[in-house]
Amino acid sequence: MEFELGQAIAVLMRMPSTLNALMRDLPEPWLVQNEGAETWSPYDIVGHLIHGEETDWIPRAQIILEHGEARPFEPFDRVAMFEKSKGKTIAELLDTFAQLRADNVRELQSMNLTPKLLEKRGTHPELGTVTLKQLLATWVVHDLGHVRQIVRVMAKQYGDEVGPWKAYLAILGRD
Amino acid sequence: MEFELGQAIAVLMRMPSTLNALMRDLPEPWLVQNEGAETWSPYDIVGHLIHGEETDWIPRAQIILEHGEARPFEPFDRVAMFEKSKGKTIAELLDTFAQLRADNVRELQSMNLTPKLLEKRGTHPELGTVTLKQLLATWVVHDLGHVRQIVRVMAKQYGDEVGPWKAYLAILGRD
Repeated sequence: MEFELGQAIAVLMRMPSTLNALMRDLPEPWLVQNEGAETWSPYDIVGHLIHGEETDWIPRAQIILEHGEARPFEPFDRVAMFEKSKGKTIAELLDTFAQLRADNVRELQSMNLTPKLLEKRGTHPELGTVTLKQLLATWVVHDLGHVRQIVRVMAKQYGDEVGPWKAYLAILGRD
Repeated sequence: MEFELGQAIAVLMRMPSTLNALMRDLPEPWLVQNEGAETWSPYDIVGHLIHGEETDWIPRAQIILEHGEARPFEPFDRVAMFEKSKGKTIAELLDTFAQLRADNVRELQSMNLTPKLLEKRGTHPELGTVTLKQLLATWVVHDLGHVRQIVRVMAKQYGDEVGPWKAYLAILGRD
């Protein structure tokens, strides 16, 4: 598929309700288990998505629109949520994510991005030259990647409980 | 985590609303693209989940409860949906899945499964001896595995659109 703004927004706007359906009121063990040392729980992942709403996607889009390649993006702190989420319930995190995402989708729509603007270039601190379109496509894929991670972390908690069926379940393999 | 029936049901009962939030009214290209020859689209996957509700999980649980190891399960047709889904909209498939899943969760609850019953054994046509508990844990992991597959198939449609970010996005790699 080629990037098309309306189709991208259709995915971005669905993430809060998708995570809500999957995670709200889920028994806590599903939310706090992870895949071992230095890995993230479903709870951690929602915090990471919140931090992305606050500091990554829209702020970077604004840098591209306002400064082009002249001003590199701020590096993104991938693990800021371990401090920022402390003491918050999953319901609070899901609510915060839903609010931020709704605001950010509105902000994105208000940018009135034309095909020409989507090709505008910015500078990633590690990757170098990128376009606004690539940033927005990455936002979508990043969302989907973390849904994948959430369900993988959950599935692995039953890695032993499935017995011989493990052989059929790719999600329990190395990933 | 050890298998616990209430925690398993908490995941099973969330699948229809999760898929609904993610897929209903999604622009069609997201639903019908797949990963290449012999792979499934998100639309195909919902049909596969429907077929599982009809022929796999609860029917196999009933065979274990009624016949134990004496009667092997019927083999499960993994690709029956290519015929069965024909002509149906994604909305119809999501509605059908939601209805079947609700019925099946009720049926599961009505079995009043004790720890002893959960250890009851059945015979899988390929895997040999399995327990009812393993079957139910597999139902949960199978659900999560197909959510993972849906978001992976979607993400891959933007495999080229993300440009240099591809290096950071594990979901776009081999899987």
